[in-house]
Amino acid sequence: MLKKLMSSYAKRVALPPGTLVHLGERALDVALLSLIVYDKDTHAQYEPASFDEAFGYMTPEVVSWLNITGLHDTALLEAVGKTFDIHPLTLEDILNAGQRPKTEFFPEYVFFVLKMIRYDDRAHSLDIEQVSLILGKNFVITFQERPGDVMDALRDRIARGKGRVRRRGADYLFYSIVDIIIDHYFTSLERVGDDIELLETQILEAPSAALTTELHRMKRELLFLRKATWPMREQIMSLLREEHPHITEDSAPYLRDLYDHTIQIIDTIETFRDMLAGLLDVYLSSVSNRMNDVMKVLTVIATIFIPLTFIAGVYGMNFEYMPELHQPFAYPAVLVLCALIAVGMVMYFKRKGWL
Amino acid sequence: MLKKLMSSYAKRVALPPGTLVHLGERALDVALLSLIVYDKDTHAQYEPASFDEAFGYMTPEVVSWLNITGLHDTALLEAVGKTFDIHPLTLEDILNAGQRPKTEFFPEYVFFVLKMIRYDDRAHSLDIEQVSLILGKNFVITFQERPGDVMDALRDRIARGKGRVRRRGADYLFYSIVDIIIDHYFTSLERVGDDIELLETQILEAPSAALTTELHRMKRELLFLRKATWPMREQIMSLLREEHPHITEDSAPYLRDLYDHTIQIIDTIETFRDMLAGLLDVYLSSVSNRMNDVMKVLTVIATIFIPLTFIAGVYGMNFEYMPELHQPFAYPAVLVLCALIAVGMVMYFKRKGWL
Amino acid sequence: MLKKLMSSYAKRVALPPGTLVHLGERALDVALLSLIVYDKDTHAQYEPASFDEAFGYMTPEVVSWLNITGLHDTALLEAVGKTFDIHPLTLEDILNAGQRPKTEFFPEYVFFVLKMIRYDDRAHSLDIEQVSLILGKNFVITFQERPGDVMDALRDRIARGKGRVRRRGADYLFYSIVDIIIDHYFTSLERVGDDIELLETQILEAPSAALTTELHRMKRELLFLRKATWPMREQIMSLLREEHPHITEDSAPYLRDLYDHTIQIIDTIETFRDMLAGLLDVYLSSVSNRMNDVMKVLTVIATIFIPLTFIAGVYGMNFEYMPELHQPFAYPAVLVLCALIAVGMVMYFKRKGWL
Amino acid sequence: MLKKLMSSYAKRVALPPGTLVHLGERALDVALLSLIVYDKDTHAQYEPASFDEAFGYMTPEVVSWLNITGLHDTALLEAVGKTFDIHPLTLEDILNAGQRPKTEFFPEYVFFVLKMIRYDDRAHSLDIEQVSLILGKNFVITFQERPGDVMDALRDRIARGKGRVRRRGADYLFYSIVDIIIDHYFTSLERVGDDIELLETQILEAPSAALTTELHRMKRELLFLRKATWPMREQIMSLLREEHPHITEDSAPYLRDLYDHTIQIIDTIETFRDMLAGLLDVYLSSVSNRMNDVMKVLTVIATIFIPLTFIAGVYGMNFEYMPELHQPFAYPAVLVLCALIAVGMVMYFKRKGWL
Amino acid sequence: MLKKLMSSYAKRVALPPGTLVHLGERALDVALLSLIVYDKDTHAQYEPASFDEAFGYMTPEVVSWLNITGLHDTALLEAVGKTFDIHPLTLEDILNAGQRPKTEFFPEYVFFVLKMIRYDDRAHSLDIEQVSLILGKNFVITFQERPGDVMDALRDRIARGKGRVRRRGADYLFYSIVDIIIDHYFTSLERVGDDIELLETQILEAPSAALTTELHRMKRELLFLRKATWPMREQIMSLLREEHPHITEDSAPYLRDLYDHTIQIIDTIETFRDMLAGLLDVYLSSVSNRMNDVMKVLTVIATIFIPLTFIAGVYGMNFEYMPELHQPFAYPAVLVLCALIAVGMVMYFKRKGWL
Repeated sequence: MLKKLMSSYAKRVALPPGTLVHLGERALDVALLSLIVYDKDTHAQYEPASFDEAFGYMTPEVVSWLNITGLHDTALLEAVGKTFDIHPLTLEDILNAGQRPKTEFFPEYVFFVLKMIRYDDRAHSLDIEQVSLILGKNFVITFQERPGDVMDALRDRIARGKGRVRRRGADYLFYSIVDIIIDHYFTSLERVGDDIELLETQILEAPSAALTTELHRMKRELLFLRKATWPMREQIMSLLREEHPHITEDSAPYLRDLYDHTIQIIDTIETFRDMLAGLLDVYLSSVSNRMNDVMKVLTVIATIFIPLTFIAGVYGMNFEYMPELHQPFAYPAVLVLCALIAVGMVMYFKRKGWL
Repeated sequence: MLKKLMSSYAKRVALPPGTLVHLGERALDVALLSLIVYDKDTHAQYEPASFDEAFGYMTPEVVSWLNITGLHDTALLEAVGKTFDIHPLTLEDILNAGQRPKTEFFPEYVFFVLKMIRYDDRAHSLDIEQVSLILGKNFVITFQERPGDVMDALRDRIARGKGRVRRRGADYLFYSIVDIIIDHYFTSLERVGDDIELLETQILEAPSAALTTELHRMKRELLFLRKATWPMREQIMSLLREEHPHITEDSAPYLRDLYDHTIQIIDTIETFRDMLAGLLDVYLSSVSNRMNDVMKVLTVIATIFIPLTFIAGVYGMNFEYMPELHQPFAYPAVLVLCALIAVGMVMYFKRKGWL
Repeated sequence: MLKKLMSSYAKRVALPPGTLVHLGERALDVALLSLIVYDKDTHAQYEPASFDEAFGYMTPEVVSWLNITGLHDTALLEAVGKTFDIHPLTLEDILNAGQRPKTEFFPEYVFFVLKMIRYDDRAHSLDIEQVSLILGKNFVITFQERPGDVMDALRDRIARGKGRVRRRGADYLFYSIVDIIIDHYFTSLERVGDDIELLETQILEAPSAALTTELHRMKRELLFLRKATWPMREQIMSLLREEHPHITEDSAPYLRDLYDHTIQIIDTIETFRDMLAGLLDVYLSSVSNRMNDVMKVLTVIATIFIPLTFIAGVYGMNFEYMPELHQPFAYPAVLVLCALIAVGMVMYFKRKGWL
Repeated sequence: MLKKLMSSYAKRVALPPGTLVHLGERALDVALLSLIVYDKDTHAQYEPASFDEAFGYMTPEVVSWLNITGLHDTALLEAVGKTFDIHPLTLEDILNAGQRPKTEFFPEYVFFVLKMIRYDDRAHSLDIEQVSLILGKNFVITFQERPGDVMDALRDRIARGKGRVRRRGADYLFYSIVDIIIDHYFTSLERVGDDIELLETQILEAPSAALTTELHRMKRELLFLRKATWPMREQIMSLLREEHPHITEDSAPYLRDLYDHTIQIIDTIETFRDMLAGLLDVYLSSVSNRMNDVMKVLTVIATIFIPLTFIAGVYGMNFEYMPELHQPFAYPAVLVLCALIAVGMVMYFKRKGWL
Repeated sequence: MLKKLMSSYAKRVALPPGTLVHLGERALDVALLSLIVYDKDTHAQYEPASFDEAFGYMTPEVVSWLNITGLHDTALLEAVGKTFDIHPLTLEDILNAGQRPKTEFFPEYVFFVLKMIRYDDRAHSLDIEQVSLILGKNFVITFQERPGDVMDALRDRIARGKGRVRRRGADYLFYSIVDIIIDHYFTSLERVGDDIELLETQILEAPSAALTTELHRMKRELLFLRKATWPMREQIMSLLREEHPHITEDSAPYLRDLYDHTIQIIDTIETFRDMLAGLLDVYLSSVSNRMNDVMKVLTVIATIFIPLTFIAGVYGMNFEYMPELHQPFAYPAVLVLCALIAVGMVMYFKRKGWL
């Protein structure tokens, strides 16, 4: 993921700024368009074959949501840019998959780019994809790299006319899209939290080297997640602070709500990071405790037998004049002596707390 | 607790913003209402069966405190919201148990949400519950999840007409409620402090692996507590800074007092965290000191006997021509040699400080 | 000390704000009053038996300094509060020994609370006591918990008419009191610095487990000291920034001087903390160096003799056909072989740097 | 590199400020000039032999880019300074290779100094060189120490008239130069990222002491890189904030783009640093895991044989009255006993998880 | 050095603020005065015997630089204070050797205090001395504790009329003095950098306990140096921000230059601290690597011989019925068996990577 980000920038080097090159994985051969137009009373959904067709439906009386999936078709993007008067640097940013979350205000539109996060159940890891939004006078355009997203519930809600969304303008649609993306952070973080709790149970029960690798992987994943979410605080704050004709005043409580959620996400990621750091401590002290236990018992056994072996060695010597060797009770006496020494040492070690 | 927080958000996904769903544990089957109305001279306490009955008592001449326990009855909440003109996002926040402490100002009311903390004596851990407050023109509404709270002393004080509370308006009632909740942070933190001192004594006297698990548990608990208290600084500061018609100027010294207490709580939590971090160091160095003591003594014993065993081995060899074997004083001489070597090594180790 | 702080708050729970209860140790049975009144030309010192008597001396033409030692007599405090129109929360703060250093401005007076620090020579630790100051129009009232303080030099200076203090107003007296308290931080910190240097010498010369306990105690003491001094920066800055009729403009250089001293104290405490953290590193690496030395030498001895013991064991075997046993030079040859092996190993270990 | 920086300052000591001495490596004997002049329609490239020749081409109607490589020729620099009215301290800064990235605004020009970074494939390390830019009314002057830079792609683009650069003024040229230098940070960081991933694979597969040296080298390299990039944030922000006649308003989006890139670079370096810190943890726990494995197995083997050796020693004793010695089945019985003890200990160790 | 600082404050306790007592080492018995007066055309240098004589030369038409070495003569200081109307707290600060770097603006003068740093070649450590500057209308007074300073090059430059200094006013002289002092930080830091690089080489080649003591000493030295330089940032920034009649507007670029240098010094110290922290890691992992190597080889040797010794012990037993003992090839067979076991274990350890 890091490599992807870096290489996306590296490719751009030596091109004039504003040149449209897609800097990301090529997921689709051809871009997919989907368009939803609605007002309080009407609603329609299209899969236009071309941008020209889509643009035909986007009349000023209705709110339009144009979703473009697949960013390889730079000609399409250029057409969009020309039609809606979008700055070349914005188009460049849309194509560049390694963007930092940010809001940019242009007289004609608001540009908003963030990461869409889904928990991948098989890999037990997070899948991160960049989504760009353009909020125009009465439309929102969203750009994604790969098919499949987290916004179906919103499409549904628009179709059924549920909630406030149909009664209000493009800025509420914009807010709803960002809101549903951010809500998915919570679902994903919940799963990450489950993974952390599972890891904790495993480490407390049976610390193993494999778990540190997993711990390391999760730490790194949260490192990237943090990098992707940290700027969102400022990003949404700037929506609240700056005035733009396309953002009505009624949106303020909704944007404040988004802001709260963002801070909660950042908080949670920080908490997760602290928990993982704590887990590493737990792992290390647990491993060292176990190692100490092993070493202690084993060393004690060795220590007990070494003096005994010396005694046995003494009476294995071949000196001619060793009077003990000829006493009938010498052998059992030596055995008893050994036993006494062993018992004495065990008791001493026990009293010292070494056993 | 983390899981609870996360799952509460996860459930909300795909619902339109402002939809009222309770995101917390269901503690009660039916919401309990309790109402206190008073002015300087009169005082009455009710347990109304319905919100309509309660609303009947809340006349503009008196100060009313409506407490709602149990958040599953969303119909009740909707009625409250409609009657007092409360924003849907506020209602959503009340229902969501994973809220960050915050103050929000609306023209009609001030919304204030914080955590109520009680020390659970049996579990030796903190019990955290969310409390939401709405300060209206002449009323305060509080929302809790579970029956039982820390505010009985305040109810008492109102009933007996003690202190300033009866002579002043709803903002003073609001302050008194927040004050009594925050005062309970101190009681709870005092108990946590006792636990830390106990843990310290145990670690200094007899470090054991079980204590690190306890240390880890306390560190995590303080991690969550810190997350719950850190935003309170800003939350109460905003009460002081922002002007709102429902907050009179006389409240300023009381709010400043709350602010001081909040900072003191945050300070104390940070101090506790530093103390726990220090305790971990103490534990680790204590364990390693003990381990070193064990290893040193045991290794010294082994080291003394190994050369002696070699000597015994030499004279156990079966060579034909070993003249020493036939000397009558060889055996005692070897024994004395062994004793001298042992004594010499012990003295050397002692001088080196290894014993 | 932590426990004291916490319990002082815990006691207050369930009391209405502004209730006067002393939250600290009871050091005296009855409060002691001492009063100094002076102007440029006159000077008098009293030990009044009651506040009423004291108040009789405090005429507007002179500067008065009333010192109250012992805070258990809440009736006295109430009388002071009523006479000088002091806010109930201020009185509550005076009684509460766990106060954070702060300045509060009221129209009638300035309230200032800080810690007085003395180094206890017997316990080698710091003695911390809270001092509250009230700066009124032409008087200063100081509140202490226990008899004995650091201000005798100032009383002397007033009596002898030395320095500027007699020629100037109550604000200069206020500054002089705070200055002398803060100057004692330096004396105390100098002693702490001596303790740290002594500890360092001991750790470098003979690291022992007892020293880590001492290190831990000092770390914790500095943790509390830091908590007590950190807010002083803001506290004195607010004296500089905010305008109050009782603080004349001539005081600015003196307050700036206080501010400098406060920063220097905070700096010094941070430096001490860094030094202690460094000392812990030194201790740990010193202990591990010594342990390594022990283990290395001992293990080397064991390693040399183990192969030799094997050789001796071989020639102790009782096989019938062992031709070496019958060679006259076999025994000395084996002894020489053993010596060669031992010398070879010692040389190898030396070359490897293991000995 | 550190030494270079320091010594460059050290040389300057005792010289009056503004004295022109080159404080860097001497890479060229004589300074090389290269000049590009262009407007929308025309374009010319020169290699003038002297500054006077170059200045002759720099007419006010065209945009000029004068690049000076090699800073030893202080006379040349003085001539440039006199001609374009450049402050002596600016000239001093240009000559001083240890400059911190900064922007300085003078009425006549904007001075901008940053580091140019290239990844050196052979040394697997970064090559850092200082570049200074002066943006005048219709010209940009760049100063480099050594021949060879990262700007050929830009020269090409100007020559072919590609992109916006030919249609716009000197400020766009200035932006383009900074942009291409900053873009090379990404290419270089991508290579560093590759190195980190390679290092990680190696550490996970075969941790060795040589890898820690490499880790240490990379940590230090990033330490310097961070020092070189951290001030760029403020540097470019000041271009955005401050108004200067030579920077037109159209540049704002481009400068904002630069700012984004800079933050992304700083972010990436911080992420790399965190990754390296994580890698050190991985290395340490990996080494200690391996060491533990070694110690455990070896100690277990020793522990099993030590009691057995004692038993063998017992029956090697030479007592006359040892009845077992004369039993025909005693020898096999002792062998079986030894086997049973060994098997029993192995099973015990297995069950304890020590093997 | 720490002790010096602390004791200097401790002595002041109980003295009225503004009392002139020298708080530092007494380096000279009598203060030395040196005076330079100059304007564009004239220049004179004096060694006046008294302040009165010196003051006679300081006419308003010329710029005067009075340097006072040795601070024990408080009568002299009082005379200076009275003549130039200097605030008593300023005089107190000059006498107090433990001052934090700061700038203070008074209507009559600017007070500036900083540390002068020289690298002591014999002790391989830094020599720190306090210098105070007073910038008046047309004069600068500098105060030092000990003879010998870093400003001879500047005196030279003034004498020879070189550079801008003679053509400009007292503020440029003030800047030149501060500049030359700060430039010496770079020379000194360069030497410290050399020491760090030397230490690194030594640690990588032959880690020893003595090097950690050295590391610790350098860490502490940088700790003090950081404390002395950190406030300089704010100190010089305040010169830039605040307006004072004695500082002309032409000084701004020079002060900005000072500010740049200060930040570079702070940066360098931080970098050195990070490098030392990194070195400690390198040392620790290097020591533990060597220890691991020792332990591994030694343990492996022991482990190989312990089973062999057991085998030898078995055939040293004295059972009557041991048929092997009577086989002619038993002895060589046992020797071969031992060799095979040894070779097998070595191969196993090699494959496991333990040797």
